[in-house]
Amino acid sequence: MNATHAPTLTSWVSSAQHHPDFPIQNLPLGVFRRRNTSDSPRVGVAIGDEILDLTASADVTGVPAEPLASACAQPTMNQLLALGRSRWSELRNQVSALLAAGSSTPRRAPDLESRILVPMREAEMFVPAEVGDYTDFYASIHHASNVGSLFRPENPLLPNYKWVPIGYHGRASSLVISGTPVRRPKGQIKNPDSEQPVYRASQALDYEAEIGCFVGPGNALGETVPLAAAEDHLFGLCLVNDWSARDIQSWEYQPLGPFLAKSFATTVSPWVVTLEALEPFRVPAYRRPIGDPEPLPYLAYESERLSGGIDAQVEVFLCTAGMREAGAAPVRLSSGRLADLYWTMAQMFTHHTSNGCNMRPGDLFASGTISGPTEESRGCLLELTRRGADPVSLPNGETRKFLEDGDEVILRATCHRPGAARIGFGECRGVVVPAES
Amino acid sequence: MNATHAPTLTSWVSSAQHHPDFPIQNLPLGVFRRRNTSDSPRVGVAIGDEILDLTASADVTGVPAEPLASACAQPTMNQLLALGRSRWSELRNQVSALLAAGSSTPRRAPDLESRILVPMREAEMFVPAEVGDYTDFYASIHHASNVGSLFRPENPLLPNYKWVPIGYHGRASSLVISGTPVRRPKGQIKNPDSEQPVYRASQALDYEAEIGCFVGPGNALGETVPLAAAEDHLFGLCLVNDWSARDIQSWEYQPLGPFLAKSFATTVSPWVVTLEALEPFRVPAYRRPIGDPEPLPYLAYESERLSGGIDAQVEVFLCTAGMREAGAAPVRLSSGRLADLYWTMAQMFTHHTSNGCNMRPGDLFASGTISGPTEESRGCLLELTRRGADPVSLPNGETRKFLEDGDEVILRATCHRPGAARIGFGECRGVVVPAES
Repeated sequence: MNATHAPTLTSWVSSAQHHPDFPIQNLPLGVFRRRNTSDSPRVGVAIGDEILDLTASADVTGVPAEPLASACAQPTMNQLLALGRSRWSELRNQVSALLAAGSSTPRRAPDLESRILVPMREAEMFVPAEVGDYTDFYASIHHASNVGSLFRPENPLLPNYKWVPIGYHGRASSLVISGTPVRRPKGQIKNPDSEQPVYRASQALDYEAEIGCFVGPGNALGETVPLAAAEDHLFGLCLVNDWSARDIQSWEYQPLGPFLAKSFATTVSPWVVTLEALEPFRVPAYRRPIGDPEPLPYLAYESERLSGGIDAQVEVFLCTAGMREAGAAPVRLSSGRLADLYWTMAQMFTHHTSNGCNMRPGDLFASGTISGPTEESRGCLLELTRRGADPVSLPNGETRKFLEDGDEVILRATCHRPGAARIGFGECRGVVVPAES
Repeated sequence: MNATHAPTLTSWVSSAQHHPDFPIQNLPLGVFRRRNTSDSPRVGVAIGDEILDLTASADVTGVPAEPLASACAQPTMNQLLALGRSRWSELRNQVSALLAAGSSTPRRAPDLESRILVPMREAEMFVPAEVGDYTDFYASIHHASNVGSLFRPENPLLPNYKWVPIGYHGRASSLVISGTPVRRPKGQIKNPDSEQPVYRASQALDYEAEIGCFVGPGNALGETVPLAAAEDHLFGLCLVNDWSARDIQSWEYQPLGPFLAKSFATTVSPWVVTLEALEPFRVPAYRRPIGDPEPLPYLAYESERLSGGIDAQVEVFLCTAGMREAGAAPVRLSSGRLADLYWTMAQMFTHHTSNGCNMRPGDLFASGTISGPTEESRGCLLELTRRGADPVSLPNGETRKFLEDGDEVILRATCHRPGAARIGFGECRGVVVPAES
């Protein structure tokens, strides 16, 4: 294990000790600026309840050095993402050394903290990269089976599912940062008992709990990326809420797939947890049950022992307007595991390039809804309520088939394993506001 | 009719007289630079066989004036697109006056032509805008019916087709400019008589003849754009070849739509024909046969007399390697009409924003394959050859089920009407090169 992962490593930033998400072993990156200033957004590192301002730090401490300092002074991570794995590793090592309890830097400058650290509560966060293209996969076989059984009870899983990492192009313009209110969409909706569709506000608004991956250097058009090289292009992971209007979706999606049912908003969390930080939480790729086909060679790991998977617990919480008014805490709706996905992030990336499609720095692809084999691991209301047939009961007596105005959905993800420091992804939040009148 | 459309208007640029595509009545915009220079790309106007360099022209003649001059000095059209319709109109009027036969400008400066005009044969062209999101519609009911009948003979047209302008998100990264070679993609392919798919080069590579539309100012996330305001956001049209690997498509597309079957390359033509130039070729929106439903109110024109449609003839030509070697001219495979689309460009745009999805300057949406009611108007090989069952015979004795390596596909579009000067879109070309070995 790399020194930056040692569970005994601590930071001189006091809030980082035992922080549920951001101890020194994590060091996720985000784009921020001090709230209510005209500072240009720049790249920072989450440490406890603080953000290390990498631009200020470069000036004051020399960390990070060039070319990282220039890349981190940009208003998006794209330039940093283009630098590639060895530079990312330098950044992690330099920042870890700067923030480590034994570092000599804070002793050299007594006012250092105020010069290079910004309290998170004083920061405004931005979508971490300018996303050229956003792709959404469908990598949970449990989600695909659950959803399929609602629409095609006799044939829930389509014949291609165990062969093809199914995905579709999503909408990049409507990616928003955690905390952005989500307006209930309007759209064409046709009830099964109506002859004709109507255009009205969705009555089946749902969330989808996903993990997204930001792409690093990428590949040229016409070139494929073999699985063994895929992770050189994967910078890190964030939370993604792929808001979905199920009533719009069921009417529009044949034959070309989801379109307006998804493109009204997709929320991403502000902190990108690097693959390096996730190193202690690597697990083998999904173990296929006997009878399932082996992946085709271009998607096959050379050895079963290879740790293609990542284990993270992905939880969904709901806080209704009524709960907020009563001061009640959000209630947990579900808890799934990233390691339950049928395909790894690297397999999704390699498949994405398998036709020569070019991936660019800052591109984002997401896992699709992360559901597991159990009831409590279903990552969207469509599954949890069986398309509204079996509403969720909340502790305050409210029930939900789908989301109502004022509902806030909060995604969280954490990684824990004996012998490793627990790390987390922070939160991905969004509150539903009423449709345009 | 506006003065810039008058069929008697001529230009002092001699090649513009009777030019099949670019007389003074057209004035399409593109992004170019002189080949083999390090000039930065900039916006120019096609006039005859020449390009008016708007940056050089602003310096020498004062046309265009600010803020257009600065916008046209950019390496993409995005800034120009953001300026909106009244500025676009100023640009057209200023350029038309500058290039008109009666203009005093050329007489004032004898070397003017060499300072502000660049011969097209000396220019390198670029994708006109940085496309944030690319959307592809499916607006030809003839195409949808023809394709549907190949896959679902009993039920060719799905129940939503006449209600919903069906579309899907495409891949923006793999948009390429006319003339870029297109590498045959590899992908997962499952033959009907095989138990399992294989990963190999596509054997069913196809083109799709489409018209694309570049978006101007756009809308904020959460806001819809009514049909009456949609054209304020439509800058102009170009040709689009939505290359498609039919064997990859048929295996991967359920349930989330086309993905890798399309994302390996999409070719766009370099010249954007503005809606103003298309004014003489406006026609009413598609006249629905008796029995078809009326569009829902948000997609309905207030009057049947409104000219929501645009009439352009879209032709596909093929030139095989054998034909090139023999010096033979490309052969025409089909000819369709833009006015045969079931939905207008404005209806597609309004539908796209009907859920609050934000459109940004430079976004591109395309019509989907433009096919008409006749055999000769089928805009892709899938339709022309009935999925390969009925190969096309070429004059030199070759046949085609789908495209072969070395085949060049050339799309052209023209607008003509008695009493108006004929204008054209130029060409959208691409030659198929062998798959990665």
